[in-house]
Amino acid sequence: MAVSVASDEPAFRLKPVRLGIDTHQELVVYLRRNSHVCRSEGFTSSTRVLIRINDKSILATLSIVNDGLLKPGEMGLSESAWQRLQPDANSEAHIRHPDPVLSLSHLRHKVYGHRLNQEQTQQIINDIVAGRYSDVHLSSFVTACAGDNLNQDEIIALTQAMLRSGRQLDWGQPKVVDKHCVGGLAGNRTTPIVVAIVTACGAVMPKTSSRAITSPAGTADTMATMTPVDLDLETLQKVVHDHGGCLAWGGSVNLSPADDILIRIERMLDLDSEGQMVASVLSKKAAAGSSHVLIDIPVGPTAKVRSDEAADLLSTHLITTGKALGLDIQVIRTDGTQPVGRGIGPALEARDLLAVMRNEPDAPRDLRERALTLAAQLLEMAGLAKHGQGPKLARETLDSGQALKQFMAICKAQGGFTEPTLAPYQYNWQSKHQGRVTSIDNRLLSQLAKLAGAPEDPAAGVTLNVKLQDEIQPGQLLITLHADSPGELQYAVEFLEAHPEMIGIT
Amino acid sequence: MAVSVASDEPAFRLKPVRLGIDTHQELVVYLRRNSHVCRSEGFTSSTRVLIRINDKSILATLSIVNDGLLKPGEMGLSESAWQRLQPDANSEAHIRHPDPVLSLSHLRHKVYGHRLNQEQTQQIINDIVAGRYSDVHLSSFVTACAGDNLNQDEIIALTQAMLRSGRQLDWGQPKVVDKHCVGGLAGNRTTPIVVAIVTACGAVMPKTSSRAITSPAGTADTMATMTPVDLDLETLQKVVHDHGGCLAWGGSVNLSPADDILIRIERMLDLDSEGQMVASVLSKKAAAGSSHVLIDIPVGPTAKVRSDEAADLLSTHLITTGKALGLDIQVIRTDGTQPVGRGIGPALEARDLLAVMRNEPDAPRDLRERALTLAAQLLEMAGLAKHGQGPKLARETLDSGQALKQFMAICKAQGGFTEPTLAPYQYNWQSKHQGRVTSIDNRLLSQLAKLAGAPEDPAAGVTLNVKLQDEIQPGQLLITLHADSPGELQYAVEFLEAHPEMIGIT
Repeated sequence: MAVSVASDEPAFRLKPVRLGIDTHQELVVYLRRNSHVCRSEGFTSSTRVLIRINDKSILATLSIVNDGLLKPGEMGLSESAWQRLQPDANSEAHIRHPDPVLSLSHLRHKVYGHRLNQEQTQQIINDIVAGRYSDVHLSSFVTACAGDNLNQDEIIALTQAMLRSGRQLDWGQPKVVDKHCVGGLAGNRTTPIVVAIVTACGAVMPKTSSRAITSPAGTADTMATMTPVDLDLETLQKVVHDHGGCLAWGGSVNLSPADDILIRIERMLDLDSEGQMVASVLSKKAAAGSSHVLIDIPVGPTAKVRSDEAADLLSTHLITTGKALGLDIQVIRTDGTQPVGRGIGPALEARDLLAVMRNEPDAPRDLRERALTLAAQLLEMAGLAKHGQGPKLARETLDSGQALKQFMAICKAQGGFTEPTLAPYQYNWQSKHQGRVTSIDNRLLSQLAKLAGAPEDPAAGVTLNVKLQDEIQPGQLLITLHADSPGELQYAVEFLEAHPEMIGIT
Repeated sequence: MAVSVASDEPAFRLKPVRLGIDTHQELVVYLRRNSHVCRSEGFTSSTRVLIRINDKSILATLSIVNDGLLKPGEMGLSESAWQRLQPDANSEAHIRHPDPVLSLSHLRHKVYGHRLNQEQTQQIINDIVAGRYSDVHLSSFVTACAGDNLNQDEIIALTQAMLRSGRQLDWGQPKVVDKHCVGGLAGNRTTPIVVAIVTACGAVMPKTSSRAITSPAGTADTMATMTPVDLDLETLQKVVHDHGGCLAWGGSVNLSPADDILIRIERMLDLDSEGQMVASVLSKKAAAGSSHVLIDIPVGPTAKVRSDEAADLLSTHLITTGKALGLDIQVIRTDGTQPVGRGIGPALEARDLLAVMRNEPDAPRDLRERALTLAAQLLEMAGLAKHGQGPKLARETLDSGQALKQFMAICKAQGGFTEPTLAPYQYNWQSKHQGRVTSIDNRLLSQLAKLAGAPEDPAAGVTLNVKLQDEIQPGQLLITLHADSPGELQYAVEFLEAHPEMIGIT
């Protein structure tokens, strides 16, 4: 990601120092307030500067520090800058004014209310992936694209630009299926079951999943409690070649890297962006080499999509954009009124889905039924079952134990299966009232699981022992908390006691 | 600026440590990656956290650091956070999840294309001044208001909100005059001359000016080479009471503090924002207690305003918004095709304006004429000269030496007058060609002056020895560079040699 250099400006040479400050993807360098370079170049905090070390160069945001933190002649680097530049013991850092980032004029163009074409969008995304945008620039781009500020053409352009910004996998197969859930529903861990069922029936489903960022567990976190998920591309391809599918972490494969950068800023702003959500989902699917994608949209008052109208609009954008990328998209709308299964947290969710695949009598029925519905539709999309025959084939594959066998084979190929463990500390929360469960707050439950330690502590989280409409007696067990330490357990308990409304009993 | 606290969440106690990192107004705190609080609260970099020390609390952006920088139990504070919280030796810092910042929902409302009313705008500005917006939030707000995204009502609402966010001065006078130049023209240092003339004639003109941020000199920097400008409010009021005017730095008086925060983000994004520029200028004038304001808009290819159309639109917004605030605004359009006077840099500009007030034969005529034009119109606005009589009165006041006498009296009242000095190192740049000066690049000249050390080195900068249309002989002196050190001089020379086009000779 070389940045061109204004050849007429002399560079200053400084010794790079690793300060160990995590600025996420933002590249930040630190200079002493009264250093010669700051005085003569007029550098102040948040100036954008060009840094070169050996053959690597980056655009970074400058932060001025008082003289304690750095010695004269030193330049501090954030973790992100250090990793990009990879200095060695004798490296010299050269700093100078950068040339302007040309795509910022396209960004301003959009901010001023004009439309972005494919080429402009691609230049913006390329500069973002190259680390040439500061968080302030990223925020401006996210804001300019938020709400319904992108029309269908711009959504397609953004999706294609994000797709091209990273690696694209090709499986040499006519039909490669995938599924995606437009998140927001705790415990909704159907993916491993679905992959097991459809690949057992001969479908190709190279599933790469994300780790949790704001939720208590991502599919990759859950799988990591049972098998290695951090596969290099070669291993991943071998697993898929031998078994038709995988259940890996997508992070190491560099699919749609722009998405990982933008999504952090979207979260900080808490902005809903129809267009960016579509581009995010579909660019990752296309990059993974999928041809047929089933998208699960849970609709409910505390889910991500809260109304049928919102679900309709999202579906239209997904299908139209998918078509433009040559993807066959089908959308399924599911109940988003309460969590799925019992466990919330990586290992607890793993135990739920194992119970389903093992056909244990007390396996959560709702998780089983959701997985079967999705698998059935994917089997029909993949042409492995005639229209209407998907449900039967899916159920047989699960009930016969073939799905479990297939799941274990995939885990073995990824490095071996281990049984997910329970956390050492539990707390049982019982009902003080009699009545019926009339509401379950999915968001508060997710927060509770995170406060108990999920997903960093894989075994931590929440077991939800009730469902909507259940009749409750005083003293009946509602929630079990799981934590690795008494401190974390206590912290979650305090939060739970403060928010008894997370399970509404009337 | 207390931030309300979610009483159900336990706080963690840490020892505050001053890291000396300048993050501008953004409030940043630093925690060790594997600290207990990060694990149990799920804090990661760029999480927003609530910090309380004694009776002060702030919303800050979290930055995670590796274990080298902080000891266990310590919390690092940026300079901005340190100044807000002012910990003492035994202070304990309490950290927890903050309540949501309610005005962010108004921001999202605006991002989604709706209009902001007065109350919503006020809440946003109050939260910005209270430091509750991260740079990412500020960037989103600036972007949502950029271009022509604010209608006239919103501009008025923003101006009033910014006005109310800080102190407002009241001089108990029916007419208080002020002037403002919509920047971008090097050397255009008319203000001290104008203040001297109109206050000598009995006008009240309590002039508070800014220091340079991206330019080689602000009026406050120039005045600081001749007299103290960092006056407390009491002194400032006494000077104005005794002499009718002052020439002080506005920074210490806390007028429209929101403006100082927003302007930095606008510069980083390089976004033109009609609405924010109007709000910025007029909120500061109204806060300073002005009633009649003359606004100078230089129009030229390398000035801030580049076309008559742009100047027309800006004038309309200024006048309409001014009326809503009870300000009498008059706009004057001036030549923005080349720098004004000879000097570019604090002391060099001071020498120019002293030459004008001292009626020296070689005083720059263009600076003199501009100052007289502005002073004349202000005298008429202030009712001190009949319509059409302003120019005569202004000229007499300047030629008679009354203006100089008045200027010296104001300097004496502010703490005494000292003659601005010359820098020790000079470099003379001569023309290699014969021809006529057909273009002068105001932006490159400003950059050159900054590279020579202005405004940090008050005597550093550029003397421009030619004007447009001058006939030039080979070897004729075009530019003199002034610097405090050979290094800075050499650095500026290299830039000059690389950009000979800054003076176009054909």
